[in-house]
Amino acid sequence: MFAEKMVELGSRRSTIREIFEFGNKRATEVGRDNIFDFSLGNPNVPAPQTVSDEIVRLVTTEDAAALHGYTSAQGDAVVRSQIAESINRTHGTHFTGDNLYMTVGAAASLCVCFKALAEEGDEFIAFAPYFPEYKVFVEGTGAKLQVVPADIDSFQINFDAFETLLNPKTKAVIVNSPNNPSGVVYSEETILKLTALLKERSEEYGHPIYLISDEPYREIAFDGVKVPYLTEYYDNTFVCYSYSKSLSMPGERIGYVVVPGEMEDFKAAYAAVCGAGRVLGYVCAPALFQRVAASCAGQTSDISVYRKNRDILYNELTRMGYTCVKPEGAFYLFPRSLEPDANAFCEKAKSLDLLLVPGDDFACPGHVRIAYCVKTEMIERSLAAFEKLAQMYR
Amino acid sequence: MFAEKMVELGSRRSTIREIFEFGNKRATEVGRDNIFDFSLGNPNVPAPQTVSDEIVRLVTTEDAAALHGYTSAQGDAVVRSQIAESINRTHGTHFTGDNLYMTVGAAASLCVCFKALAEEGDEFIAFAPYFPEYKVFVEGTGAKLQVVPADIDSFQINFDAFETLLNPKTKAVIVNSPNNPSGVVYSEETILKLTALLKERSEEYGHPIYLISDEPYREIAFDGVKVPYLTEYYDNTFVCYSYSKSLSMPGERIGYVVVPGEMEDFKAAYAAVCGAGRVLGYVCAPALFQRVAASCAGQTSDISVYRKNRDILYNELTRMGYTCVKPEGAFYLFPRSLEPDANAFCEKAKSLDLLLVPGDDFACPGHVRIAYCVKTEMIERSLAAFEKLAQMYR
Repeated sequence: MFAEKMVELGSRRSTIREIFEFGNKRATEVGRDNIFDFSLGNPNVPAPQTVSDEIVRLVTTEDAAALHGYTSAQGDAVVRSQIAESINRTHGTHFTGDNLYMTVGAAASLCVCFKALAEEGDEFIAFAPYFPEYKVFVEGTGAKLQVVPADIDSFQINFDAFETLLNPKTKAVIVNSPNNPSGVVYSEETILKLTALLKERSEEYGHPIYLISDEPYREIAFDGVKVPYLTEYYDNTFVCYSYSKSLSMPGERIGYVVVPGEMEDFKAAYAAVCGAGRVLGYVCAPALFQRVAASCAGQTSDISVYRKNRDILYNELTRMGYTCVKPEGAFYLFPRSLEPDANAFCEKAKSLDLLLVPGDDFACPGHVRIAYCVKTEMIERSLAAFEKLAQMYR
Repeated sequence: MFAEKMVELGSRRSTIREIFEFGNKRATEVGRDNIFDFSLGNPNVPAPQTVSDEIVRLVTTEDAAALHGYTSAQGDAVVRSQIAESINRTHGTHFTGDNLYMTVGAAASLCVCFKALAEEGDEFIAFAPYFPEYKVFVEGTGAKLQVVPADIDSFQINFDAFETLLNPKTKAVIVNSPNNPSGVVYSEETILKLTALLKERSEEYGHPIYLISDEPYREIAFDGVKVPYLTEYYDNTFVCYSYSKSLSMPGERIGYVVVPGEMEDFKAAYAAVCGAGRVLGYVCAPALFQRVAASCAGQTSDISVYRKNRDILYNELTRMGYTCVKPEGAFYLFPRSLEPDANAFCEKAKSLDLLLVPGDDFACPGHVRIAYCVKTEMIERSLAAFEKLAQMYR
């Protein structure tokens, strides 16, 4: 009666959600202060004051019918221009509003690109560890997701494994840097190697392999690390962006896709993005927040909190004996679990009211994700539990 | 390289958009006041003041991280409860928050239902005249849309034609009342006959045929006409609602799906809706506007303007000799074109700077849609052009 796959996807809550709900239940038993919940990637730093100010300004000064009315499907023209200019200022690119397509957040950006590209028999490639919804979105188009196993020593790209997975059916490759869940930023060396290989294989196969850059964490990068802007390295790149993390408004669902003018057959590419948005029922991105995003483009929430959190957690955990690649961005730490079975390890952690997510969910067993977009004070209080957990394995 | 169908859908602007863009261009030539643009269903009546007030209140008093944070995928629990209560108060239903799934507007509500239901070989049925995106959305799931020709004397359902289209592959039937583009409200008699037939055929085929009620115009109904609430007549009904028209905020993309508890296998049905939302990348409906919708549920913009517009247009056009079923809701008039070819008729209208949409787009040739969600004063000024147009055919 119902589409079986949809029932299955809707019944099976993600592991992350399960843990989060457990935390809420446990909080009612022992008090919120005694639960160390590192499960969700929901920014705890509030949106900058300018977001609130801009909302109030728009609502109190603009004509309501126009402000809350439909924008064109690809987004308001002024909004797209302003955002293009902001990207150009930051990255030295040369986009105009016509390169932008406003979306209902990063998930929509990705779904639109997948739908725009996917044809019968196509394969997409992601690098582990990766955001588990990629598989849901890609398979939703009828295409297949191939996963390159992680290089667990650096969480850069495992090129040997990648090369064997590339084949003429490869339509696109998904890159997520700064990465969820590892927090690692792909170095320029990695990007150069990746794009050289993609150019070579595109040539060999006689059709482009597209790069899809999922970058909601772009601005959350520490220690002055460079996060390469991929259109500058590879013409056939779709940039999928969201303001969820940079402006701490993941619930408002606002983002965009960049289709660079240098992309092969640009006009068809942009049309395919528009067509995909139409088929998926997006109509237009939320109108008020299109304007807010444009006005606040280039600003961020107080990201320094994440850096402070990373420093405390990384330093303390490695001191306790945990093994962890030092993250340079996003708000995740992805240490190895202290036993091979990350699920068993997370269960032990749970007995200490320490809520972590097993890496199995990100196609990277033997690791756990710690989302440190939480109060610094909670991190400080949680350290004793991390220490107790380590002791269990000594 | 790109999905062919997506390129096609993204390249071909809808007729309505074409006409609208023509109007904008023409306005720069002869002045906005000299163009009578009846092409778009974008409400001209502003959102009620409470919408603005509520936005400002939420933004200035609530914690920004929580306010703009993710809600659960099906929508904030408090929001869903409040909306369920509001529906119950108005329609005597008995929903709880667990019957509601918040969406990114009516298009998303529809896409989610289609995706939740569509299996290999399924057919959906719509009644002409119908909103043309139904076809795009249904075909986007791989299913087929069958169209019942219009009963042009009443724009109620053409049951003879409908009966011949129903077959064991029929998964669901889409109803849109008050109707876009005819403005007609399906009578209780129509609904009783429709639901009796669906019950009979569900029994005969051994599986339910679902009813999908697309009702963004529910509150825009005149002369005290009753708009039957379909879950009260038929258990296997999905209600697809949007606040776009009732609160004049189509750009904000906020609506919901109701899955009534009486639906066969309710749990699987609700799960399928959640799974479909997940696959389509919706994540959650815009968080701020979920709260605004809940606070303003039951209120509407100043609908009396639409009634006034209908009265002027209907009375004047019929007086001039146009043939038109009197609309009892929405903000559309759907008269017959004065020659069989509605496209040719619209071209003649265009020469008078009168912008109408040919009925062919709504699977109903020989008619034109007049969207009267415009300033009353423009309608008054347009009457001379309608008169001139009629004279061309005398």
